[in-house]
Amino acid sequence: MIIIMNPGASEEQITFVAEKLKKRGFGIHFSRGVERTVIGAIGDKSAIEIEALEVLPGVSEIVPIRKPYKLVSREFKKEDTVVKIGKKLSIGAKNPICVIAGPCSVESRKQINEIAQDVKKSGAAALRGGAFKPRTSPYSFQGLGVEGLKYLAEASRKTGLPVVTELMDPRELKPILKYADVIQIGARNIQNFPLLKEVGRVKKPVLLKRGSGSTIEELLMSAEYILSEGNRNVILCERGIRTYETYTRNTLDLNAVPVIKKLSHLPVVVDPSHGTGKWDLVEAMSAAAVACGADGLLIEVHNHPEEAFSDGSQSLRPDTFSNLMVRLKSIAQAVGRSL
Amino acid sequence: MIIIMNPGASEEQITFVAEKLKKRGFGIHFSRGVERTVIGAIGDKSAIEIEALEVLPGVSEIVPIRKPYKLVSREFKKEDTVVKIGKKLSIGAKNPICVIAGPCSVESRKQINEIAQDVKKSGAAALRGGAFKPRTSPYSFQGLGVEGLKYLAEASRKTGLPVVTELMDPRELKPILKYADVIQIGARNIQNFPLLKEVGRVKKPVLLKRGSGSTIEELLMSAEYILSEGNRNVILCERGIRTYETYTRNTLDLNAVPVIKKLSHLPVVVDPSHGTGKWDLVEAMSAAAVACGADGLLIEVHNHPEEAFSDGSQSLRPDTFSNLMVRLKSIAQAVGRSL
Amino acid sequence: MIIIMNPGASEEQITFVAEKLKKRGFGIHFSRGVERTVIGAIGDKSAIEIEALEVLPGVSEIVPIRKPYKLVSREFKKEDTVVKIGKKLSIGAKNPICVIAGPCSVESRKQINEIAQDVKKSGAAALRGGAFKPRTSPYSFQGLGVEGLKYLAEASRKTGLPVVTELMDPRELKPILKYADVIQIGARNIQNFPLLKEVGRVKKPVLLKRGSGSTIEELLMSAEYILSEGNRNVILCERGIRTYETYTRNTLDLNAVPVIKKLSHLPVVVDPSHGTGKWDLVEAMSAAAVACGADGLLIEVHNHPEEAFSDGSQSLRPDTFSNLMVRLKSIAQAVGRSL
Amino acid sequence: MIIIMNPGASEEQITFVAEKLKKRGFGIHFSRGVERTVIGAIGDKSAIEIEALEVLPGVSEIVPIRKPYKLVSREFKKEDTVVKIGKKLSIGAKNPICVIAGPCSVESRKQINEIAQDVKKSGAAALRGGAFKPRTSPYSFQGLGVEGLKYLAEASRKTGLPVVTELMDPRELKPILKYADVIQIGARNIQNFPLLKEVGRVKKPVLLKRGSGSTIEELLMSAEYILSEGNRNVILCERGIRTYETYTRNTLDLNAVPVIKKLSHLPVVVDPSHGTGKWDLVEAMSAAAVACGADGLLIEVHNHPEEAFSDGSQSLRPDTFSNLMVRLKSIAQAVGRSL
Repeated sequence: MIIIMNPGASEEQITFVAEKLKKRGFGIHFSRGVERTVIGAIGDKSAIEIEALEVLPGVSEIVPIRKPYKLVSREFKKEDTVVKIGKKLSIGAKNPICVIAGPCSVESRKQINEIAQDVKKSGAAALRGGAFKPRTSPYSFQGLGVEGLKYLAEASRKTGLPVVTELMDPRELKPILKYADVIQIGARNIQNFPLLKEVGRVKKPVLLKRGSGSTIEELLMSAEYILSEGNRNVILCERGIRTYETYTRNTLDLNAVPVIKKLSHLPVVVDPSHGTGKWDLVEAMSAAAVACGADGLLIEVHNHPEEAFSDGSQSLRPDTFSNLMVRLKSIAQAVGRSL
Repeated sequence: MIIIMNPGASEEQITFVAEKLKKRGFGIHFSRGVERTVIGAIGDKSAIEIEALEVLPGVSEIVPIRKPYKLVSREFKKEDTVVKIGKKLSIGAKNPICVIAGPCSVESRKQINEIAQDVKKSGAAALRGGAFKPRTSPYSFQGLGVEGLKYLAEASRKTGLPVVTELMDPRELKPILKYADVIQIGARNIQNFPLLKEVGRVKKPVLLKRGSGSTIEELLMSAEYILSEGNRNVILCERGIRTYETYTRNTLDLNAVPVIKKLSHLPVVVDPSHGTGKWDLVEAMSAAAVACGADGLLIEVHNHPEEAFSDGSQSLRPDTFSNLMVRLKSIAQAVGRSL
Repeated sequence: MIIIMNPGASEEQITFVAEKLKKRGFGIHFSRGVERTVIGAIGDKSAIEIEALEVLPGVSEIVPIRKPYKLVSREFKKEDTVVKIGKKLSIGAKNPICVIAGPCSVESRKQINEIAQDVKKSGAAALRGGAFKPRTSPYSFQGLGVEGLKYLAEASRKTGLPVVTELMDPRELKPILKYADVIQIGARNIQNFPLLKEVGRVKKPVLLKRGSGSTIEELLMSAEYILSEGNRNVILCERGIRTYETYTRNTLDLNAVPVIKKLSHLPVVVDPSHGTGKWDLVEAMSAAAVACGADGLLIEVHNHPEEAFSDGSQSLRPDTFSNLMVRLKSIAQAVGRSL
Repeated sequence: MIIIMNPGASEEQITFVAEKLKKRGFGIHFSRGVERTVIGAIGDKSAIEIEALEVLPGVSEIVPIRKPYKLVSREFKKEDTVVKIGKKLSIGAKNPICVIAGPCSVESRKQINEIAQDVKKSGAAALRGGAFKPRTSPYSFQGLGVEGLKYLAEASRKTGLPVVTELMDPRELKPILKYADVIQIGARNIQNFPLLKEVGRVKKPVLLKRGSGSTIEELLMSAEYILSEGNRNVILCERGIRTYETYTRNTLDLNAVPVIKKLSHLPVVVDPSHGTGKWDLVEAMSAAAVACGADGLLIEVHNHPEEAFSDGSQSLRPDTFSNLMVRLKSIAQAVGRSL
């Protein structure tokens, strides 16, 4: 449930309510708005009498949260969450819409530096690139590991672009915290709960990708794992789901964008590269994503897609990406936003 | 295969080639462009020697069509097909994008006339409304039948909006030909081949909805049934597919829009009402559909959604529809088109 | 709702209750058991006072049916429905489990006669074979039509096997009624409601195949269309649904067998040929179907699968079918039934 | 590729071939049959000349493996793999079919001990029970952890039943190795590659559950991760996949049983509890699983399902389980096996 405090409630009153709830076994989470503070209390409602809470000094109203996700829900927090990335970038605010671009895998120092320069020039807001790669086959390229992280960090220093990279193993959290600005949790780990808890205990922003077999509710529940551990800096990502349609690699579920914006206060980005699996569909689906309200895009760009170690067929060349950025600017404007 | 004739090929030469192919058992279809004529020959390739064809007077080139759909494919016809609806409207041209709006079911003379006036005022290009309704339950409202068609025709006369309505039974084709401007084949009849053949034998435009369990290729194959009978005026419609996601009624597969535009020359419209099943998602998904290249939209509008006989929860009120049309105009402009 | 009459209720009393309900606009269906008669009344409950019904002479109890399907439900009819096929066969009784075998398409007089002899020898209970074929492509073999029906009828006369064949077009009902013993409604026509109503108006048994994108509830609702028109002789068929798994043509949903047996009184058969799409999986899945309670099987058998006009890869050779029948006998015995 | 050695090849010859391949960068895996040894060499085929290998002393034949999974494939190993569990049990041999039964979660010492006694009495071969529970919600019961493992070990000592329990976090491997006999990798971790590699480095048997969104090929690829690290003791488990059907929790894909037996040498068990989500479907689907060739079953049994902390609705009561075991014995016999 949510305890909404009066606009003028004192810090003392807030603490008093929170302590009372803690004693009855509730988990306590604060959401401090400009005007007033909201206390989220998660636990067994029968452990306390609502009436006894309502009369406490400073309390304005008690509201139950009926959804299975609590901290993630719009009921808990009405205003959009804005996640700060690195020093200058933020995502989830009306402006700008953020485009995160880069190769599927970091393949070499030269490769990632070149691509970083290219996407920076076209207006990308952040750099993506995998150092630890989750591959269906144990015999496929598994990523450059910590070496790859270092190349990413170098490309970031040179371009000023913050870095988004995937974490697969809780034991690799440390180097990722050191070298990256956003921790990506990939689609395959959407219900790897120990990993979710782990990234919930740090402050670094997390980009959480919907699993190819996950419902929207499961995505929100997995985000709840992260928020309930203390980390509120979560960005959700729609990247296509698995259906019977075989022409595209996945079916990009853009319905999820307005649905998530309604159910949750967290920012939503769309990955049209995985969502289609074909580079020549990326432009159209990027435009669609911006039109339906996405706060950002995650796009695979490679300087030599035909030689990419992974996902070449869904990667844009730098010049195609550059054209796409121009087109997206008009769409963003048409929906009253900027890029 | 396709026989591409020389720009200057005479009518006599064209006929000669066509006759030769007919004698060997091929089905013959002509596509007459501004510059030159293309002959589509469908049948068993081993029945004729390609070399013998290539040397015929007027023949420029022989090209095999490798796709299972032939007349529907971009290989057979490079230019976008523009379908004329009624006397003034056309769909599939760059401009305008056509919005077809109206109630799920025609419920009364008053209802359809009111809604027709409303959507006309907001800029709709055509009126939709079901007189014969395919309902999951035999005990649900099955539509007003021919009476409903007459009400539709009256609303059309008064507003000048052409009418789109569904045909379920080959035996009801006659009244639909009389009262409607576009014959809709619903998602449940996507592989009702006798019905497809039936509408293939008339000239009236057909709006063919993808089945909720159909692949894109199956949709194209079903369109091929119609074209192969002689009717080239086919509009394809993406309306959501069935997936494991339960928050929305269907998963709107917008990937299908750029895919179909690539594979086929036929116009594509999107139905965000069925594609989401929730009225408050329709605006966002309409915007997305226009952004990714749809030639039109099919939107359910009802003056009293809470009392609708069917699909109330996915229907827009006239004023919401009016706001949507304003917003769509900007998106259309952003992609270089008009509404 | 259901009106359960007293065991000794007179015909007069039954008629009186039925007439009263008819006057209020209810549709009336009788289920006459050994001990007592049950009246199904379908319509708007608010049109009559339950109390006024309960006190009528001969009435024992009024029970609401909460499911959307009524006549099809176990609530309406507790005992298993046994459908008579031809003069000697019946399906839905505990014994025997019926195996319906034959080619996908009737290809020639010789072919269907040979296969009929073969499957008869191995113990098949009925012969399947398509004369009107629903094909994804308009250019594929569309069946021999009425000629095919005649060949089927001849094979039936010679072997004594009743014939199951598909109806696609309401206008072809007449010849099918003349030549076949069971009308098959194929997966693609599961929601072709005019066709369902048409076969609901005859007495000939109907084998209704679940659509590859249909839920179990939709299958039952489509059966309700047939029963509500008067034809109670409906056999349901699970034949695989469309999922993301591509190794098999469809995913055979055997869960559906015990689910349907629980929800409905109608017999259920399983089609492992379409349910797998691969002949070498048919034996295992036939065994599974019998083990989980199927009342019958629908199996494709072809004397020359490699030359079949359709579905060759999922057809058994006669000798493989013969071995399968031997194996199925033991499974049937193990679940207390016979074949 | 596979290097098949002559029946009489000496240990020296085998080592010579293996060393030669290792030097060229191949990963080497031995499969030692009764008659002869097979060497699996995984790596870049262009690194060595096949002709140069074929002439080495002791080499009989070189066979390429075309499937993306190698060590897991029937091509690599023709004979069924038999996995030893604890001291007395083995799975994958023709006899017996193994039933692994127990509660979803270990809830208390008393609970797990009682259930263990019950299922032992009915003929279960092993005990299942979760100590670390992957739950969609962070607020749901997360399992008793190491305490739960100790209770499981105690129940195992008292009944002699080996224990199967789930590992979610690589950091919890140690206690699981100490207290359990089989490590379960749950459906949600099917592509948690660091976890797969971790259990690949121990010798303890692994029960690998197919993800609810995984293809059969992906399941085999994930098993390949384990085998390629050295652990050959892998048991595959079909537990239902996610489809559009909502009546059941999952769609049990029994097609997967004969498919996996064809593609791989690893044993396959079926989990009808998760595969249906409804206890009253478990009996029918267990029978079906045995009939189509499963080597074992994984069944949830709870002494008080209505009070279970998790999955109560799909758990059998001990007496229902006992009846099921009797019925399964006949089915096993009918397919020439025992239970």
